[in-house]
Amino acid sequence: MIRCSAPGKVYLFGEHAVVYGEPAIACAIDKRVFTSVELKDDDSVRVTALNKRLYCDNQEFRYVCAAAKMIKELYNINFGADISIESELPSSQGLGSSAAVTVSTLMALSESLGIGLKDYEIAKLGHKVELYVQGTASQADTLVTSIGGMILITGVEMSKINFLNLPIIIGATGITRSTSDLVQKVAILKNRYPKLVGSIISCIGEVTRHGKSKLIEGDITGIGELMDINQGLLESLKISTLELNNLIYGARRAGAFGAKITGAGGGGSMYAIAQGANIDKVASQITLLGGQAIKAHFSDRGISVD
Amino acid sequence: MIRCSAPGKVYLFGEHAVVYGEPAIACAIDKRVFTSVELKDDDSVRVTALNKRLYCDNQEFRYVCAAAKMIKELYNINFGADISIESELPSSQGLGSSAAVTVSTLMALSESLGIGLKDYEIAKLGHKVELYVQGTASQADTLVTSIGGMILITGVEMSKINFLNLPIIIGATGITRSTSDLVQKVAILKNRYPKLVGSIISCIGEVTRHGKSKLIEGDITGIGELMDINQGLLESLKISTLELNNLIYGARRAGAFGAKITGAGGGGSMYAIAQGANIDKVASQITLLGGQAIKAHFSDRGISVD
Repeated sequence: MIRCSAPGKVYLFGEHAVVYGEPAIACAIDKRVFTSVELKDDDSVRVTALNKRLYCDNQEFRYVCAAAKMIKELYNINFGADISIESELPSSQGLGSSAAVTVSTLMALSESLGIGLKDYEIAKLGHKVELYVQGTASQADTLVTSIGGMILITGVEMSKINFLNLPIIIGATGITRSTSDLVQKVAILKNRYPKLVGSIISCIGEVTRHGKSKLIEGDITGIGELMDINQGLLESLKISTLELNNLIYGARRAGAFGAKITGAGGGGSMYAIAQGANIDKVASQITLLGGQAIKAHFSDRGISVD
Repeated sequence: MIRCSAPGKVYLFGEHAVVYGEPAIACAIDKRVFTSVELKDDDSVRVTALNKRLYCDNQEFRYVCAAAKMIKELYNINFGADISIESELPSSQGLGSSAAVTVSTLMALSESLGIGLKDYEIAKLGHKVELYVQGTASQADTLVTSIGGMILITGVEMSKINFLNLPIIIGATGITRSTSDLVQKVAILKNRYPKLVGSIISCIGEVTRHGKSKLIEGDITGIGELMDINQGLLESLKISTLELNNLIYGARRAGAFGAKITGAGGGGSMYAIAQGANIDKVASQITLLGGQAIKAHFSDRGISVD
């Protein structure tokens, strides 16, 4: 049996603006999805996850099944397998769990079948799987979970920047939303006020550029301040919600340096940065306000065979 | 006995950005401050307000006493008076109660003493009183309460724009804050990120210009949408608070077209626009969330002798 894992991620800065060519920064976190593969002599793929065991001929576990299908077709190999998934990430909360499950499945199958795919190849293949399942997909999600660390995304270019090991506190609202609906919502607003929304998006780009400098300097206060500014700008794009704002303000009151949405907004998750005793205070506050608090760290570790 | 009154006001769009030369729009509301003056044969001024009756030789009722002092000095008249104040506005909540009490006092004294000051003269004199009491003061506050209606403020120019009679719901947090501290806070942020904060301020100016068009068109949905965008931009200047955001999101959930801070932020008030049954829903929601809900209308009426 082969067991692989891949990390979740947060967007530090720049989500939504990245759709319009502005830079964004995403980072892997130390919460992971684990995929175990045991090859079988038949030609069926069965997936065990969330206390269910299902054959890959239904509408569940679509990323895992699409990954297996992709490997079968691309390498013209027929195989049977029992695939089992464990996750430290809530799903559909903007934390990259689908990208993580996709690439960890691809790697576990690649290792089991002796294909020997490398991390960048897995990232590319993972993107294809996400495109197949979702229709549209960001290349950043599968890249970050494949190679780990802090990634500056500028248009179609993606590059690692200095890694800063910071503790973060994630607050998942539990509210699921469609990323493409929210991207569409911003597009509609931009259509209505092209110059204004264009300028707001440029401001987010400027925040990300400042954010990159602060990350390189390790200036936590500055990072927090820019997170808050970024949050306001996301707010002005009308993609925040009462629940997200409660967690964001709760985190700030509990001593966070800064707090913002991570990902598309409209539900999903926020994250905050804090230090020392404030980490637990922020987490408690998030829990108290009805969010799922996840204490994590930025992580330099991408996909791995465990 | 002479009784005069003057209205409170809200900032529809553009607060804070107006400090940097961007346009803003303020409007009088139909909640007023009433000042009654009864001249007496002595040379003392006594003020009755908030269930207190005090001579003008202490630190309370400073606007009223400064207005009386200004009239005495400017017109070289010695007089005694009993001045009594009633207000439909909470004080120190960003609703212009100090400007309203100042100009209604000036007018009531002017009428009592036969000086015959006109609204624009009262606005100017009121600004001097506010400068004397506060050190700094916006000319807009005393102008709006003196002449009523909807005022476009561009730099030092102020002009009436088409008046749109809309119901609004104000939510006062009850938290007092210093306007100049908040203006200073934005200035510090702008010093740290001149280009970024400058761009955010330009965006607010752009919102105000769109807002003006929507007000002229009477497009309530558009006005609401722009209020929300403006709120996000104010949020990015870090002058909003948990309490304001709770009321703002509560109002939106209860069916408001839009909701934002009015004035300096950091406490004070928010306002929302809504129609029909949603007006009461928004007001109830604000009350439920711990705010003081004030149902009002924009008003074209400035200072008046009642």
